[in-house]
Amino acid sequence: MPPHPTEHPNWPRLIPDAEQPWQTLDRTELNGPPRRLVRDTVRLHGGQEGEYVYRPRGPRAVFVLPITPAGEAVMIREYRYPLGAFVSEVVAGGVEAGEDLGHAAARELLEEVGGVAAEWLALPGFYPQPSISGVVFYPFMAFGVVLQAAHNEESELIERSVLALPEVYRQLDAGEIFDGPSSLVLFHARRELEARGLL
Amino acid sequence: MPPHPTEHPNWPRLIPDAEQPWQTLDRTELNGPPRRLVRDTVRLHGGQEGEYVYRPRGPRAVFVLPITPAGEAVMIREYRYPLGAFVSEVVAGGVEAGEDLGHAAARELLEEVGGVAAEWLALPGFYPQPSISGVVFYPFMAFGVVLQAAHNEESELIERSVLALPEVYRQLDAGEIFDGPSSLVLFHARRELEARGLL
Repeated sequence: MPPHPTEHPNWPRLIPDAEQPWQTLDRTELNGPPRRLVRDTVRLHGGQEGEYVYRPRGPRAVFVLPITPAGEAVMIREYRYPLGAFVSEVVAGGVEAGEDLGHAAARELLEEVGGVAAEWLALPGFYPQPSISGVVFYPFMAFGVVLQAAHNEESELIERSVLALPEVYRQLDAGEIFDGPSSLVLFHARRELEARGLL
Repeated sequence: MPPHPTEHPNWPRLIPDAEQPWQTLDRTELNGPPRRLVRDTVRLHGGQEGEYVYRPRGPRAVFVLPITPAGEAVMIREYRYPLGAFVSEVVAGGVEAGEDLGHAAARELLEEVGGVAAEWLALPGFYPQPSISGVVFYPFMAFGVVLQAAHNEESELIERSVLALPEVYRQLDAGEIFDGPSSLVLFHARRELEARGLL
């Protein structure tokens, strides 16, 4: 395993508030883990009742922007069944139960693109879809990434590509990277890449 | 209604691919519209069968970064039940069936913060969560936004705040804006704000 990533200062703040204006009255389980979905009956702040269908808090995912020793980015194109399309993304994947976030990032880097990193940097975490999901995404930059053979799961259809950083950011600014979370990771990484003279 | 927004050049490209490597064999409906969720039995590219729980394509949402005539940003803090937290966001909301995206943006701007815009600019659209959702998000910048009283739905708990743009971008860079889609909209808007001398 490579050196352990640190965490970003905002990660401990991605938690529920101390006070809740809505009250859960009843819950129906629509689907079990790992893609747990529920329908709650809720007492709203105004006193009236409502229904809310959503994915509860619990699931976490890591995102990794891998940078090679030559200063290139490793991007993937992955087939995404819900969209019926191949989508350009950074490395990403779900965190397993009880798994450390840094361990998950190193594991996904190895599995998806066969990468091993010399140095890690944590970026701000975020909620990808607050209206419907309690999932939290934790992004990293991985530097000095050496590539070996990937170990994709048989349920994954992934093409790896190594691109010059100016080309990746040209695509980002032009709106050619359709994956929102990957785009956000790239934007948060930009300042660090510029500071290191890589962009 | 204010002048109609144009669309971004990437919007017509946010569609399924012509060829699909996976084949849908069977489908169970887990929840009906507007938050439709399904469980599909799928023939994967390698020939084996799998299950996939997801939200199918169809739902769309608009995002709006409102800028006042004085060059401030209008942000909201909205209670998000799936997270149990108030989250800082730009204006956003679901597009109604058959509704034009520009109309939805103007409607949400008026409903959520009581805003009416003099000028609109479309930003790159994106997929917020390709692994689990077919939803597509369409963002806008709204300029010259004059604020009146908001018309929040009784199921929404929203606080409006008007902030100096440098403060909003300080929060963004520091990882203090936890909503991923709002953060991405702000990053895509940055260049235009700088070009106009507003940031």
